[in-house]
Amino acid sequence: MLKNKGILTIDLGAVVHNYKVLKAEAAPGACVAAVVKANGYGLGSVAISKILSKAGCRDFFVFSFEEGVELRAALKEPRIFILSGFFGNGEAYAAHNLIPALGSFIEIENYRKLAAKLDKKLDACLNFNIRMNRLGLDTLETEKLIADKTLLDGLNIIGVLSHFASADEDSPLNDEQNEIFEKIAKHFPRAEKSLSNSFGAFRSKKYHHDLLRPGMALYGLNPTPGTKNPMKGVVSLNLPVALLRTIHAGEGVGYGVTWKAEKETVLATVAAGYADGIFRSLSNKGALYWKGIRCPIRGRVSMDLTTVDISAVPENQRPKPGDLMELIGVHQSADDLANDAGTIGYEVLTNLGHRYERVYVDEDTMRISGGKSASASGA
Amino acid sequence: MLKNKGILTIDLGAVVHNYKVLKAEAAPGACVAAVVKANGYGLGSVAISKILSKAGCRDFFVFSFEEGVELRAALKEPRIFILSGFFGNGEAYAAHNLIPALGSFIEIENYRKLAAKLDKKLDACLNFNIRMNRLGLDTLETEKLIADKTLLDGLNIIGVLSHFASADEDSPLNDEQNEIFEKIAKHFPRAEKSLSNSFGAFRSKKYHHDLLRPGMALYGLNPTPGTKNPMKGVVSLNLPVALLRTIHAGEGVGYGVTWKAEKETVLATVAAGYADGIFRSLSNKGALYWKGIRCPIRGRVSMDLTTVDISAVPENQRPKPGDLMELIGVHQSADDLANDAGTIGYEVLTNLGHRYERVYVDEDTMRISGGKSASASGA
Repeated sequence: MLKNKGILTIDLGAVVHNYKVLKAEAAPGACVAAVVKANGYGLGSVAISKILSKAGCRDFFVFSFEEGVELRAALKEPRIFILSGFFGNGEAYAAHNLIPALGSFIEIENYRKLAAKLDKKLDACLNFNIRMNRLGLDTLETEKLIADKTLLDGLNIIGVLSHFASADEDSPLNDEQNEIFEKIAKHFPRAEKSLSNSFGAFRSKKYHHDLLRPGMALYGLNPTPGTKNPMKGVVSLNLPVALLRTIHAGEGVGYGVTWKAEKETVLATVAAGYADGIFRSLSNKGALYWKGIRCPIRGRVSMDLTTVDISAVPENQRPKPGDLMELIGVHQSADDLANDAGTIGYEVLTNLGHRYERVYVDEDTMRISGGKSASASGA
Repeated sequence: MLKNKGILTIDLGAVVHNYKVLKAEAAPGACVAAVVKANGYGLGSVAISKILSKAGCRDFFVFSFEEGVELRAALKEPRIFILSGFFGNGEAYAAHNLIPALGSFIEIENYRKLAAKLDKKLDACLNFNIRMNRLGLDTLETEKLIADKTLLDGLNIIGVLSHFASADEDSPLNDEQNEIFEKIAKHFPRAEKSLSNSFGAFRSKKYHHDLLRPGMALYGLNPTPGTKNPMKGVVSLNLPVALLRTIHAGEGVGYGVTWKAEKETVLATVAAGYADGIFRSLSNKGALYWKGIRCPIRGRVSMDLTTVDISAVPENQRPKPGDLMELIGVHQSADDLANDAGTIGYEVLTNLGHRYERVYVDEDTMRISGGKSASASGA
């Protein structure tokens, strides 16, 4: 039977492998959490968190309250932290045993009100804004808190967090952020300290503190830019050929006819496009692979279709309609694809579409689940 | 209660309005179909098709077999056409009464085999490749078919299709494609002829033939580039403020600190990022709106968060945490946003994320459905 859908394979064994690499990298005494926000960077937060929980991970970070509720339904024991803080859902945080990373006085006050109402001490983290100006308590709020700990009465501050802005580079900002973080954290001696994302984990052990918070490295993106990726690839994405065609010199391809053949050219049209997360910015830039041969994208990526040049494939080895060509896999990583698209691997992963058949495989690359039920587990 | 989720509102009344505008535009005798592939350009194919069916639309185009099956479950009567052709699912096409747009001899032969097996004539369209080299029968196949209609025995060819490559421009290619299409179509006098997408519908009535196939215009994108959009906006997307902060001159924002304040600046961090379809290419380029005031994006868009400059908003009118700022709506269309992101409105729509609360409103802007059930209707 001809294939008519792309197959998105998520190697859970590789996720566990990457978790172990991070554990081995961690400074003595530092634990490794898993960041599974945005549906596990698009790959299925529930499936990934379950397998990491089995592998010993006890701390999970999500962004929103809703993501926390979904994860809690699947995992009873682990700690689940809500990076966006405390908004809008009051008692449900406590009911689902979710720990917010409080990043403003408004959130602290509202959370203290909840503690008073429930008449119990509530666990919380404090999220400090250091040089990034995104979320987190600002300098004045931080000084005020440190000077007057009664502002936290009713709360059990179990963690202090901040976030690197430039740990993907050898920037002086990393040490600067780390030093400010240490100065703040020493005022909360009983709280676990967490600063490092994936980049920070590999940049220096002095940034590790009590808890590493990797995301992208778990999912196989490269946390050591410019050097060999120490992580194992997690995602394979293979797209079905709908049609082959040979065109003559002078003929064009796609909307706006932005590419024209200079000589006789063999094209394969594959059944996936920008609605499936193949960024339109890959038009005339990216490539698919067939038996290891690079097949450049010709013309514009359209909503449901992408056309590639397979002229470099020997005639007797060409794909047929229904064969699957590699977009992400052994020959091209999500980072490589992102590079051609002018973005980062993160955006490639979080934009992977919903029309693929999603298949989860375990350590031994045995198919363990697939199709709608598996993809629905995280969507 | 503070809002912690973006609200994506889809105005079904505007979709119906746009359908009526297209009907009024159509040449005498030409019908108007609806293209609802890619989950109705990301907006919910089932909800949109149901309301268009009530408004009199009898023809729907999807891309894949699976999309056709989903739509058929919701709508019994209308014709449903599968643009990708005939792949992989054999008898299920007939069981769900789906009509493939056959675009190769392989598909024609396989579909004839199915007709023979079922011992009945099966309805089909023929999709002709004219200058675009994406899908569709090539010139040699077309000549062969015209010369020998027995190659279609067993099939009832009810439609002939092709597709404009450059109807968004005043290009000579439009007339060229139309003339070739007419030459081919006259050999299939009993089949309905369909060539025009949204752009074609507004470019010239001579391109209308029997059936218009608009997509983007239904969804409120502009089918007349460079002139006033004749369609009504369908999508509003409003994002919740997580935090306000004032920074001093010299302070920076976000990953890589790619933006630095030249003077004291008031920032709002909103709880949505590239995982929600706010393209990372909008970093330091796009804007949100608050009470009609443009609030530029500062620094990089991150996965879950975007920071905007609200300094232009008078102090007593600033948003508070939980207030919703406009990303798409009255002050900024999906086309405008696409322009800042370096792409087209289509890609903005098909990449709208899954963490928003999706709300469908009817003609009188009454909330008719929302939340998970509504979004699940099409995802």
